[in-house]
Amino acid sequence: MTERVVPHFQEELEQFKARLLEMGGLAEERVAAAVHALVERDAELVERVLDGDGPLNLLHIDIDRRAFKLLALHQPMAVDLRAIVSALKINSDLERVGDLAVNIAEAARRYLRHPPVKELIDIPRMGDLAQSMLRDALDAFVRRDTALAQSVLNRDDTLDALKTQVFRELLTFMLQDQRTIEPSLDLILVSRHLERIGDHATNVAEEVIFMVSARDVRHHQGEEPAT
Amino acid sequence: MTERVVPHFQEELEQFKARLLEMGGLAEERVAAAVHALVERDAELVERVLDGDGPLNLLHIDIDRRAFKLLALHQPMAVDLRAIVSALKINSDLERVGDLAVNIAEAARRYLRHPPVKELIDIPRMGDLAQSMLRDALDAFVRRDTALAQSVLNRDDTLDALKTQVFRELLTFMLQDQRTIEPSLDLILVSRHLERIGDHATNVAEEVIFMVSARDVRHHQGEEPAT
Repeated sequence: MTERVVPHFQEELEQFKARLLEMGGLAEERVAAAVHALVERDAELVERVLDGDGPLNLLHIDIDRRAFKLLALHQPMAVDLRAIVSALKINSDLERVGDLAVNIAEAARRYLRHPPVKELIDIPRMGDLAQSMLRDALDAFVRRDTALAQSVLNRDDTLDALKTQVFRELLTFMLQDQRTIEPSLDLILVSRHLERIGDHATNVAEEVIFMVSARDVRHHQGEEPAT
Repeated sequence: MTERVVPHFQEELEQFKARLLEMGGLAEERVAAAVHALVERDAELVERVLDGDGPLNLLHIDIDRRAFKLLALHQPMAVDLRAIVSALKINSDLERVGDLAVNIAEAARRYLRHPPVKELIDIPRMGDLAQSMLRDALDAFVRRDTALAQSVLNRDDTLDALKTQVFRELLTFMLQDQRTIEPSLDLILVSRHLERIGDHATNVAEEVIFMVSARDVRHHQGEEPAT
């Protein structure tokens, strides 16, 4: 847009960021579907989540290639370089979120073979929280908003507390009735998968804070010899 | 060493790779210590693993900064660029392996509060396997050895099979004796942490294959317009 930059590069960079956001949206959607399938005991939706990993994996490769191309052809400096390197890491985090959606669906498939252990309340709550953390972390990336990124970090404790609560409650069930042991194990796994999705959102948020604050660090480093 | 390259860059690149290997060695060591502490019921070693995450985290940041500096100051091309981008991802994988060593130690701490459920055989086996996968994946990175990387990918199935075996055996214990439920849960978690360490080794190995084969891909891409 401005005269000082190469328009081709800026255009490619914007496309690159748009793809990353698309990937974020898709990952979030898949987490929502996996949790919904578990809570609603929707075996058909479980299978759709299990079979639907393709588009996310293709996006992951595409974003990776775009990042590499941006680095190789345009040799971007400072702010843009940092954004591309950050996006590369965020891309890995989002791919793993997609894997975790599959893991949740796998646990859901096993869980549905048993009668329900209990009404699921904390797990969908964890799902909503993890999704909102992911969404805000990506918004923070786009807007370079460290305050929003910090708010993502703050929510991680709530997610951890919910995971502990889920564990304690299910342990009680398991101790009381051994028929609940196997399905409870899968719910415990789901709660851990959701916690890890929160961890990935946290990684993204930390990356945003590092990316934005690195500008200042970099100014100082410019004055030192490049040892 | 050769006359065509900037010696300063090559020197920094070698230092950078050396740091990554150091990080790999440290991550592997911490996994070994965590598993050893669990198997030998060594509460003191458990605490040392829990307290000893600092050096790995510092290395993680240091490697990240070196990568960024290499990209920003030297604008490397083709093979070197791909190696640096790959190393950035491997760095993230190794950091998470370090986190998983902490997770294993946390589970070990809880496990040691109970009498042993059983003699641990498959879990140390999983630990050895995960470590060897990690070591070979990093060797494959340094030597650009796709055959070795492929052998890492092949071992992942064995690790998965061991995890399933651990799960089935512990489930039997839990169903027979409810006093084993809580400690068995921690062993199941440990087996999953080890499986994830194998997944990270797999990521590294896939990165090596992509890094080496991307040279060919890149040749073709050079003939197309940069859209």
